[in-house]
Amino acid sequence: MTAPPIDLSHHFSYTAKNRAASFVKAFYKYYQIPGIANFAGGLPHPSYFPYDTLEANVARPQRLQPVTAGDSKPERVTVPKLSEITDVQRRIDLTTALQYGTAEGYPALLSFLRQFVRKHLHPNVPYEGGPEIVLSCGNTDGFSKAIELFTNVWNPDRDWIRQREGVLCEEFSYMNAIQTAKPRGLNIVGVAMDGEGMCAFGKGGLADILENWDARQGRRPHLMYTVTIGQNPTGGVLSIQRKKAIYALCQQYDVIIVEDEPYWNLQFPSAYEMEANSRGLPTKPPQNYNVNGKSSGYQFLDSLAPSYLSIDTEGRVVRLDTFSKTIAPGSRLGWITAQSAIIERITRITEVSTQQPSGFVQSVIAEMLMGKQNAEQSRIFKTQGPEGWQMDGWVRWLEGLRAGYEKRMQAMCNVLEESKFLFSEESESSSTSETQVQDWEVVDRVQMFDFVWPKAGMFTWIKVDFETHPLRPKYSAQKLSKAFWIHLTQKPALCLVGPGSMFAPTPKSVAEAHKYLRLSFAPMDADEVAPFTNRLVEGFRSFWRRKDLDGLDDDLPTLEMHMHQLGPGANFLGTGC
Amino acid sequence: MTAPPIDLSHHFSYTAKNRAASFVKAFYKYYQIPGIANFAGGLPHPSYFPYDTLEANVARPQRLQPVTAGDSKPERVTVPKLSEITDVQRRIDLTTALQYGTAEGYPALLSFLRQFVRKHLHPNVPYEGGPEIVLSCGNTDGFSKAIELFTNVWNPDRDWIRQREGVLCEEFSYMNAIQTAKPRGLNIVGVAMDGEGMCAFGKGGLADILENWDARQGRRPHLMYTVTIGQNPTGGVLSIQRKKAIYALCQQYDVIIVEDEPYWNLQFPSAYEMEANSRGLPTKPPQNYNVNGKSSGYQFLDSLAPSYLSIDTEGRVVRLDTFSKTIAPGSRLGWITAQSAIIERITRITEVSTQQPSGFVQSVIAEMLMGKQNAEQSRIFKTQGPEGWQMDGWVRWLEGLRAGYEKRMQAMCNVLEESKFLFSEESESSSTSETQVQDWEVVDRVQMFDFVWPKAGMFTWIKVDFETHPLRPKYSAQKLSKAFWIHLTQKPALCLVGPGSMFAPTPKSVAEAHKYLRLSFAPMDADEVAPFTNRLVEGFRSFWRRKDLDGLDDDLPTLEMHMHQLGPGANFLGTGC
Repeated sequence: MTAPPIDLSHHFSYTAKNRAASFVKAFYKYYQIPGIANFAGGLPHPSYFPYDTLEANVARPQRLQPVTAGDSKPERVTVPKLSEITDVQRRIDLTTALQYGTAEGYPALLSFLRQFVRKHLHPNVPYEGGPEIVLSCGNTDGFSKAIELFTNVWNPDRDWIRQREGVLCEEFSYMNAIQTAKPRGLNIVGVAMDGEGMCAFGKGGLADILENWDARQGRRPHLMYTVTIGQNPTGGVLSIQRKKAIYALCQQYDVIIVEDEPYWNLQFPSAYEMEANSRGLPTKPPQNYNVNGKSSGYQFLDSLAPSYLSIDTEGRVVRLDTFSKTIAPGSRLGWITAQSAIIERITRITEVSTQQPSGFVQSVIAEMLMGKQNAEQSRIFKTQGPEGWQMDGWVRWLEGLRAGYEKRMQAMCNVLEESKFLFSEESESSSTSETQVQDWEVVDRVQMFDFVWPKAGMFTWIKVDFETHPLRPKYSAQKLSKAFWIHLTQKPALCLVGPGSMFAPTPKSVAEAHKYLRLSFAPMDADEVAPFTNRLVEGFRSFWRRKDLDGLDDDLPTLEMHMHQLGPGANFLGTGC
Repeated sequence: MTAPPIDLSHHFSYTAKNRAASFVKAFYKYYQIPGIANFAGGLPHPSYFPYDTLEANVARPQRLQPVTAGDSKPERVTVPKLSEITDVQRRIDLTTALQYGTAEGYPALLSFLRQFVRKHLHPNVPYEGGPEIVLSCGNTDGFSKAIELFTNVWNPDRDWIRQREGVLCEEFSYMNAIQTAKPRGLNIVGVAMDGEGMCAFGKGGLADILENWDARQGRRPHLMYTVTIGQNPTGGVLSIQRKKAIYALCQQYDVIIVEDEPYWNLQFPSAYEMEANSRGLPTKPPQNYNVNGKSSGYQFLDSLAPSYLSIDTEGRVVRLDTFSKTIAPGSRLGWITAQSAIIERITRITEVSTQQPSGFVQSVIAEMLMGKQNAEQSRIFKTQGPEGWQMDGWVRWLEGLRAGYEKRMQAMCNVLEESKFLFSEESESSSTSETQVQDWEVVDRVQMFDFVWPKAGMFTWIKVDFETHPLRPKYSAQKLSKAFWIHLTQKPALCLVGPGSMFAPTPKSVAEAHKYLRLSFAPMDADEVAPFTNRLVEGFRSFWRRKDLDGLDDDLPTLEMHMHQLGPGANFLGTGC
C-alpha cells in the first residue's frame, strides 16, 4: 500500500506559482474534429521544411564491449519525412519532429524514456503512481528550471535577510550549478564530505548545519543540489545507508533534493576491489540493489547504486538525467524525473523558455533507440530497415560505456597508487637508482599526495600534501599549489589538471581548495591514460625536487577573483568531516 | 563618424548583473599548449559518441520559386565524424558539434549567421562596431533570456509598488511572450495599434502612455516587446517613419526595445497592391530601404522593411530571430542581435541554462548552409561533395518561401475581400440567387466583418461586426462571438479559427477581443486555402441567417479564466487609436 506524494507547492517560487498552462490546450479537442479546416494554429506548412530525410550512421550497442570490442560496423537509421504510423507514441518522422511540439517532449522519445525511467532505472519509487518525466536540454537546463521553480531571487539592497533562501551542496561541487544559483542572491551552503560524498552527521554535516542554522544568515535552506554517483569532483558514490540518513533529515527539515546524475551508469565495481587489494582494506561484494523490490529487468541496472528516488516516500526528489555522457554533450538533451505536480510546473516553465529540445536531436536519437517502429514501417513500405537498439540495446550500450571508462579509471589509478611517495634517494639524486632496491623500511620517504579510488564517473580527486615539500617553510601551501599547477603545464610534465578552486562553492572550500586537484580520465585516448598519468607523477617528483619556484609565476585566476565571483553574502558554513 | 552604443547596464536585472563569466575561460591559453595532456576538462571521449555520421536529404534553394516551381530533387549533406579543416569557423564535424561547446554557438554556424546579420540583413546599424549575435533555442528562449536580463521579479506581498517594472506591448500580442513576462509580476502595458502596428501618438499610443504614466501602477515601463513585421495577430508591417517616432520616444523615456521578428522575410508587396486595387486606395511602390545606405547585396533583402536596428543609434534594440519559420519550428534554433555588452550578458545567462543549441541541429543546418567547407573537404578526401546553399542560396530560399506564403495570403484575402457583406436576399432565402444580379445600390446589405490585408507573416486579422447580427438585440456581442466560434467548428463550415482572446494581453484588450478572429493561411495545403476560406465565409453567412443559438453552448475558455491567467495586478491602460 503506497501513499501519494505530498504537496510541496509551498516551495514553489512566486513566479512559478503564477505560471498558467498555455490556454491553447483548451482548444485541443477541436483540433481532433475530422475534416476541420485549421486556421487557428501558426504552424508553418511542412512542405516548406527543407529537410526530406535525416539520417545517420550509428554504432550498434555491441560496439563497446565489457570484455572485448564488439561489432564496430555502424548501422543506418533514417528519419523519413512522413511516417505511416499513426500512434504518436511510436511515430517518428520529420513532419512531426520538425513541427511545433509539446513541452513534455517528442511523444515517441518521451514514451521510450518514461518506460526506461519507471520500469528499469527506478523500478521501486515508493510513492503512489510513480514518477513522471519531462525532457530537458541537458542537466544545466534542467537545474536552471529547478532553480526557477524552487527559489526566489534575493537582493540585499531590497529584501530582508529573513527572506534569503539557500541551497545546500557538497563542499566541493560542480561550479556551473553553483553559478546558476548564486547570482540570484541565494545562500550557497557547503556540507562536509567524505570519500562517499555528503555527510549526514558530524561537524559540518547536514544535521549539524540544519539543526544549528543561524537565522541571521537567512532562511534555513530548503533546497539541496547533490551529485551522488560519481560526484564531481570527488568521484564518490553515496551509499544507500547514507542516502536514507540524509533523506530523513530532508524530511525533518522540509528540504527538496535535486539530484544531478550525469554519471549514474559509470559505476566501477573494480574500484572497490582494486583499492582494497592495494591497501589491505575489506572488499565490497557486488550488489543487487533491487533484491528486495522489483528488478529493473537487467543485471547491470540492478547493480547500480540507486537514486534518492528509490527511497522518496514523499516525492521531494527531483532527478536530472542527461544524454551528455551516454550519447554526446552536444545533444543538449536530457530529462527531469519527479512527482507529477513538480513535473507539471517544470513543463509550464519549459513552455515559456526552451519549448522543447530540438526536433533534430529528438528524432535522430528516437530513431536510433526505437528503430523497430521503423522496422514496422519498413514492412509497410516493403523495404529493409534496421531493428534499432531497443531497451536491451540501450542498456547494453550503457554497460559497454561503463566498461570503457572503468578501464581508463584503472589505468590512471594503478599509476597513482604506486606513486604517492617520494623516496629520499629520489629527492637527492636521480642517479642513485641502485639504492632504491634496498628495503623500503629504512628509506626516508615523503607522501606527496593521496586519493580515494573513484567509484564512478570521470574524475580522480587528488589531495596534495604541500606540507611535505622541502620549500614549505619558505612558501605558503597556497603559493606552492599555484606554482605546482604551472610547473605541471611546463615540460617535461606538460599536464593540465583541474585546480581545486574550480570546484569550491564557498569561501570555506576556497580556503581548502589549494590542496586538491581533479584529474579527468575521459578526454584523452584510452591508451594515453597510463603514459599521461606517468608524466603527471613525474611532474610531482620533479616539483618535490625543486630548489626554487623560478619561472612559475603566472596570472592564474586568483582567490580574490574567485571570491568576487561568489558574489555578495557568501556564507562561511561547512567544514570537513 | 559613428558613436559607440551607450551604456544601458542600469537596465540589467540584479541577477543578470551578478553573473560571472565561466572562469574556465581563464585557463584557455593552457589548453593551447602543444602536446599538453588534458586532465582538466570533463569532456567525454568522442569515440564514445554513437554517431559516425549525420546526414540528410535537403531541398535545393530553387525548390521554392517566386514564379514557377524549381528543382525539387534534394541534395545530400553529410556531417562527418572528423573534418580535416582546422579553421574552427569553417569546420563542421561530429567530433566538435557533439562535444561541449561555447555558449555563443557552434563556431561555423555562428560565423555564417554573424556575416548574414552584419553584412546582409542589417547593413546599416548606426552604432560603432555594429551588432553582435549569440545563438538561441528559438525566439521563445530568446525572449525568456531577454526578460531574465532586463527585469526583476515583483511580488506584491513582498515588494513596493514603486519597484514594479513593466513591459510595453501591442494591445493585441503574441501571448506566449506575455506569459513569459506576466508571472514575474511585471506590469503588462498594451499600446494602441492601427493597421501598421503600434501607435506612437494619439490616445493610448506610446507617447500618451509614457507621458501620462501613473506612478501608482509601478515604475514607468523600461522595456518594450514588439513584433513589427507580420505582427502577430494583425499581420501589420510598421513603417520606418513610425519606427523612428517610436524609437525617439524610447530614447526620451529610456526604454529597451525587444523586437521579435519570426516573419521578417515573409513581406508581401502584393498585399498593398491588391488591397489598393480592391478598395480604390493609392498603391505603394516597391521600396529599396537601403538606397541611402549600404546595400544588403540582395535586391530581396533591400526590399524588406528594415529592423529597429537600422535606426538604433544608441544600442537599445535587442532583436530576436528564429529558424522556426524559415527552416522548421522543431529546429529550436535562432539568434539574438544587439550591442555587444548586451550579447555578453545573454551569453552568461546561456552558460547556466541552455549552454548552446543542440549540436545535432547546429551541424546539420551549418552543413546545409555552408556545404562549400565540405566541398573543400571533399577535395581533400577526393570525393564528390555538394556545394551547399551558401549566402546566395539562403537568401534565395527566403525569397522562395515568401512567394509560397504570399500566394496563400492572396488566395485567402481574395475570398475574404468579396465576402464581407451579407445581402438581404441572401439572409432571407438562399434560393433567390437571381435577385442578386440586380444593382447592389438598391439591395439591403450588412457588413459582417472587415480586415486589413496582411502585409507580412502568416495571419489575417478579422474584425467581426456582431452589431449587424439579427440576434444582437437579444444577445450580447460577447455571447454571439462565442456562439459564432462554435458555429464555425460545426458542419458544414467545419473551421477552427483563433479567437481574439488568445491574443489579448490586458483586461482592456480582453474586453475588445470578442470582435476579432485570427486566420492562419500557413498550416493547410496551398490549394486548400481558397476552398477552406470559402467554407469559412459560408459559415459567416449561415451564422448571420441563424434565428437562434441552439446547440452552440460549450465549455470554451472563458473570459474569467483568461483574466485569472493574467495574474495579479493586470493593468487597465492602453486603448485603440
